[in-house]
Amino acid sequence: VSEHTGGRGRLCVVGIGPGDPAWCTPEVTQRLRDATDLVGYQTYLDLLPPRSPGQADQQVHVFDNREEAERARVALDLAASGRDVVVVSSGDPGVFAMATAVIEQLALAADVAGRTDERAGTGAWSEVDVDVLPGVTASLAASARVGAIMGHDHCLISLSDNLKPWAVIEQRLDAAARADFVIALYNPISRHRPWQLGRAIELVGTHRSPDTPVVVGHDVGRAAETVAILTLAALPEADVDMRTVVIIGSSTTRTFRYGDREWVYTPRSYPEPKV
Amino acid sequence: VSEHTGGRGRLCVVGIGPGDPAWCTPEVTQRLRDATDLVGYQTYLDLLPPRSPGQADQQVHVFDNREEAERARVALDLAASGRDVVVVSSGDPGVFAMATAVIEQLALAADVAGRTDERAGTGAWSEVDVDVLPGVTASLAASARVGAIMGHDHCLISLSDNLKPWAVIEQRLDAAARADFVIALYNPISRHRPWQLGRAIELVGTHRSPDTPVVVGHDVGRAAETVAILTLAALPEADVDMRTVVIIGSSTTRTFRYGDREWVYTPRSYPEPKV
Repeated sequence: VSEHTGGRGRLCVVGIGPGDPAWCTPEVTQRLRDATDLVGYQTYLDLLPPRSPGQADQQVHVFDNREEAERARVALDLAASGRDVVVVSSGDPGVFAMATAVIEQLALAADVAGRTDERAGTGAWSEVDVDVLPGVTASLAASARVGAIMGHDHCLISLSDNLKPWAVIEQRLDAAARADFVIALYNPISRHRPWQLGRAIELVGTHRSPDTPVVVGHDVGRAAETVAILTLAALPEADVDMRTVVIIGSSTTRTFRYGDREWVYTPRSYPEPKV
Repeated sequence: VSEHTGGRGRLCVVGIGPGDPAWCTPEVTQRLRDATDLVGYQTYLDLLPPRSPGQADQQVHVFDNREEAERARVALDLAASGRDVVVVSSGDPGVFAMATAVIEQLALAADVAGRTDERAGTGAWSEVDVDVLPGVTASLAASARVGAIMGHDHCLISLSDNLKPWAVIEQRLDAAARADFVIALYNPISRHRPWQLGRAIELVGTHRSPDTPVVVGHDVGRAAETVAILTLAALPEADVDMRTVVIIGSSTTRTFRYGDREWVYTPRSYPEPKV
């Protein structure tokens, strides 16, 4: 294993896109190639292309999907020891992914820096070169598959209430639906909270017609990809899990058939509001 | 110039990312290489890498930035004649860009298909293979530069009122600010509407503190890139044009200094709402 030669270690938070290797930016591919250490959740590490012969070995640090803070600390410690570390997210690392977890750890370290009770070790993180590399986020990949459902004003909302009170999620869904945004739902459902998506649909449905177009993208860009075009009324019956992104159209979003395809788009023109 | 050999023409709407060639996905690079015809706005075509010696010539069709519908029709006509056409957007083509303009033209063609007053020519479009390839959108690139300001629930809103009534934009800004979304503003200002951004700041400012962190990204990923971290109070004095993306933090977004960098992020944790 080659050491990063810059003296200062570095830590790079990357998103490899939603799944298709052809959606991973060359900037990210290069960093993945150069890294001495990869830190990530097994599912994302499995999506990486195999190392070519002749490439230096990498140490791979596999974590459970829920241990985000711990994953960030381990990555920062490795970088502080002079290693060239890449933290691997899917999609864009800045959208409900690892960039925030890493920057949060830096913020905690900044808060204690200079205090007498400084936590052992985190001071060394200030010497690490940290950067975040953007990527293709899952909702935009799903939108591209069906045309342009997210072509106009839209929101991205995570339905996970692990760290955010459910009341805040409801308030945001209500506001987004009232203001007629297209709404992309990330983390739409989990084993622990099977009722979240149903409640979200109910809330949005108070402001939006049952025949509002909805796109359900599952494993977009991977071998098991399915992208379904349905309606808000049919969404409760859809097959949705944590690897699904759900996109609910605005009042103007429309579907149509042309040639051999069905398309969904949100027009650029918007009607004058009723006063 | 080589003809596309598939018989059926094809049309691909791509986004080359916000500017840095290392942000253009391999999928898009491949399509740009294969195309017989590129259709785009001069500024985006200028960002493409030069053709290598030995590559087939391409016809390049340059349009003014405002002629989006015409650009889409020309591209569809070229593809219907059997050519391999790529419509070039910056960023992600599905975010306030050309994907919607192209799909809108297909929708218009679908509407008239089979009618006796069918517009000449558009029937042939139904034979064209159309697809949209996702890319890195500008706000996520700007967010990555400063850490993770868009790391949690956020909205993307275009301030352009060319096709959308200003009253709708105000309603969306108000809803997004009330519900404490991070807000990314695209097309924040134009020569024809110099007051839009000021009015948007005023609206958001009724719900958000003057010291709310704001990121102003200009020409992100290009040679002239500047990314400034400032506050909502200072935003009216910032240098903003149509190549700028403005990101306004939520009530929890914070900035801090650590090592030799200033960071901005929106924490994953959110306080319980006051009842």
